[in-house]
Amino acid sequence: MNRNPDSDFRSQGLWARLARGEVSSEQAVERCIARYEARENDVQAFAAFDAERALGEARARDRERELRGPRGALHGLPFAVKDVIDTVDLPTQRGSPRYEGRRAEQDAACVRLLRQAGCVLLGKADTVEFAGIGRDPPTANPHDPKRTPGGSSAGSGAAVATGMAPMALGTQTGGSVIRPSSFCGVAGFKPTYGRVPVQGLWLHAPSLDTVGWMAEDTELLARTGEVLTLGEWQAPEAGRRLNIGLYRTPYWSDAEPSSRSAVEAAAEKLAEAGHAVEEVDEVPGAENLNEWQDVIMHGEARISLMAEYGAGKQGLHEDIIEEVEVNRGITPRAMAEAYDGIGGLRPVFDKRLADYDAWLTASVPGEAIPRRDGNGEATFNRLFTALQLPCVTIPGLTGPAGLPVGVQFVGARFADMQVLAAAAMLEYLLAGE
Amino acid sequence: MNRNPDSDFRSQGLWARLARGEVSSEQAVERCIARYEARENDVQAFAAFDAERALGEARARDRERELRGPRGALHGLPFAVKDVIDTVDLPTQRGSPRYEGRRAEQDAACVRLLRQAGCVLLGKADTVEFAGIGRDPPTANPHDPKRTPGGSSAGSGAAVATGMAPMALGTQTGGSVIRPSSFCGVAGFKPTYGRVPVQGLWLHAPSLDTVGWMAEDTELLARTGEVLTLGEWQAPEAGRRLNIGLYRTPYWSDAEPSSRSAVEAAAEKLAEAGHAVEEVDEVPGAENLNEWQDVIMHGEARISLMAEYGAGKQGLHEDIIEEVEVNRGITPRAMAEAYDGIGGLRPVFDKRLADYDAWLTASVPGEAIPRRDGNGEATFNRLFTALQLPCVTIPGLTGPAGLPVGVQFVGARFADMQVLAAAAMLEYLLAGE
Repeated sequence: MNRNPDSDFRSQGLWARLARGEVSSEQAVERCIARYEARENDVQAFAAFDAERALGEARARDRERELRGPRGALHGLPFAVKDVIDTVDLPTQRGSPRYEGRRAEQDAACVRLLRQAGCVLLGKADTVEFAGIGRDPPTANPHDPKRTPGGSSAGSGAAVATGMAPMALGTQTGGSVIRPSSFCGVAGFKPTYGRVPVQGLWLHAPSLDTVGWMAEDTELLARTGEVLTLGEWQAPEAGRRLNIGLYRTPYWSDAEPSSRSAVEAAAEKLAEAGHAVEEVDEVPGAENLNEWQDVIMHGEARISLMAEYGAGKQGLHEDIIEEVEVNRGITPRAMAEAYDGIGGLRPVFDKRLADYDAWLTASVPGEAIPRRDGNGEATFNRLFTALQLPCVTIPGLTGPAGLPVGVQFVGARFADMQVLAAAAMLEYLLAGE
Repeated sequence: MNRNPDSDFRSQGLWARLARGEVSSEQAVERCIARYEARENDVQAFAAFDAERALGEARARDRERELRGPRGALHGLPFAVKDVIDTVDLPTQRGSPRYEGRRAEQDAACVRLLRQAGCVLLGKADTVEFAGIGRDPPTANPHDPKRTPGGSSAGSGAAVATGMAPMALGTQTGGSVIRPSSFCGVAGFKPTYGRVPVQGLWLHAPSLDTVGWMAEDTELLARTGEVLTLGEWQAPEAGRRLNIGLYRTPYWSDAEPSSRSAVEAAAEKLAEAGHAVEEVDEVPGAENLNEWQDVIMHGEARISLMAEYGAGKQGLHEDIIEEVEVNRGITPRAMAEAYDGIGGLRPVFDKRLADYDAWLTASVPGEAIPRRDGNGEATFNRLFTALQLPCVTIPGLTGPAGLPVGVQFVGARFADMQVLAAAAMLEYLLAGE
């Protein structure tokens, strides 16, 4: 397995060592800076990075720990933030030339919660313009510079994969967290829609946009979720038999052999360890979900971008102009049909998912594609984003080019911690190889 | 009829005279400033008002009109903005002591669109804290200082009622536009959910929050809607026979005689003029809508306020602390049931509404209540906000205390301009008295 190009670093489990008090926050930030210095030239994960500022914040957290103890499990943890999420210390440029050097006057609510818990802001991870459409970031896949890291949370995925940050916030509107996590070979999580506050985010398609994050491992995904008020993390009990559904989705024929093999290898691993794995029958109507998601995403994006368009075409990416002017001919009737079609399936999926700890499925169609061909498809993400379901991708498997291919766990709405626990179980089994 | 305490001013139809070129933008702003000087001491509609800045902006729009013509129908129109909507020129304090003097670094998208169309920012209208819960503004009802102007867009309603602004932006999460419009005796509009961009708003309950606005008359509501990309306004054709449904809602027993009389008087007026008015049968399940809306509003508000809570209790209103700590015991299951219950009724209402130009119903339970008793109930708003339907309230009728009581028109999703046209027809008929 080539889970990570920087596995020497990763195997040190920075966050766990920090939590155990084996390294200080300052040392953790120094590690991240050393990784940044070693890798950023090639990877270009960051739109902004301020080493001195982060070191100062880390030292303050270390002093605080000495005087009053840690604020929680993530006290002193360095983290990166996707550049469509406001931060007061560093510019938030939204991946857009229009917002070069922009400073928000307040941290986004999700960033505030992390800093209130003692986390240390490292830098801003680069992104596709407005996390949606337009400029692509210069970020390279850390495993192969000619391949995409995946969009739109490209910098977040690359930063975690290289050890430049043990955890990074992203956002997902289609597949913008799960896909780059898979392509970069890290653990990634998109929680239930609406459970993480959105104040201070650029909202591209507000009924879909969800804050998500990537991390060194599943437990750190879960610990971050605790800070972001998703509930209490409970590691899966030893000996507990999970009930896993293998859900191929209506789009299985779009999965390449690499992704099919990864899902089947994961299913086998789980079954070998005594967990129940059974094929899930298709949900009638699910075959429309990706198309409905597309209608809503582009219909809402047009509205979100209207004021940018109104400010003049100068400096505005041609794809954004096209999104506003053409908008794929999306009508109000099509929007209503898409909203209602998805809305009708949400309780159906929830009910079917209630019989399982989680469903196992593909994260992506396959390995990271060449950058010249784009950021990859969100085929196995758009339906779950539309359904508002919590999704976790975990690394550990690879494709024919030796590149990472994640597998995805999906659960019912609000079953965030339960889905993370199922993912943690497979992560444990894969690490045992 | 005592439609407006400042009817001498209102009858001059500031916006129409501006559009016809009979007054300049500078003169229009001067009128607003004169009204502000005459009334603000008693009414306290504004959290911030900068007369000199507005005059300068108006003069620039006047010069531009001379040189290049108007940008559109609203060129030079002064407007006020609810203080939960960001503006770069004036502070945006969100009605909260925590945000005293706060400056946003960019106008909210809805404000950008209006200014791009040549509108002139007058000031920030005061609001209930975070447009949701906490501090009440000092704003008085312009008709009776002991009564509430209605929340949360209190200042917006009072500013338009007094002629301090011909148009003002608000937001609605429960009944926060329609209710203050009715209590203050102005025309008010909450468009279809999601059709007006939300970038730069404080989002209190994001799946419900909608930008709305108040204005001198229904046509100005519609012209504002054009700028905010809702489509083209077409005044109702003379001689056209409307098909109006009279929808009492499951909450009709909560309507006071004043509100019932207003709705029945409106129905009679429409019928006398030859329009079809028929009672609408109740929609099965609709009796749950207000309760579901309540669950979602408080469930989401807790998440929105979490980072405020995390910043410490000092200066935080006790109602906000309670919202976060207690949250009425709302569970994830209750949230999902509410989302799905409402989601299932949306297409049902749309289908029923498709047979009508609009449904006529109550805007509020009755006249404005004493300020000591709160901001009034959103009984006839919460269900329609949850259903994402466009809602218009128009003034022209009064209750036993001589105070305004609006009547509301509701339409299918995306039928915004159609519902405004129905409201304009009744406005015309009432003005003929």
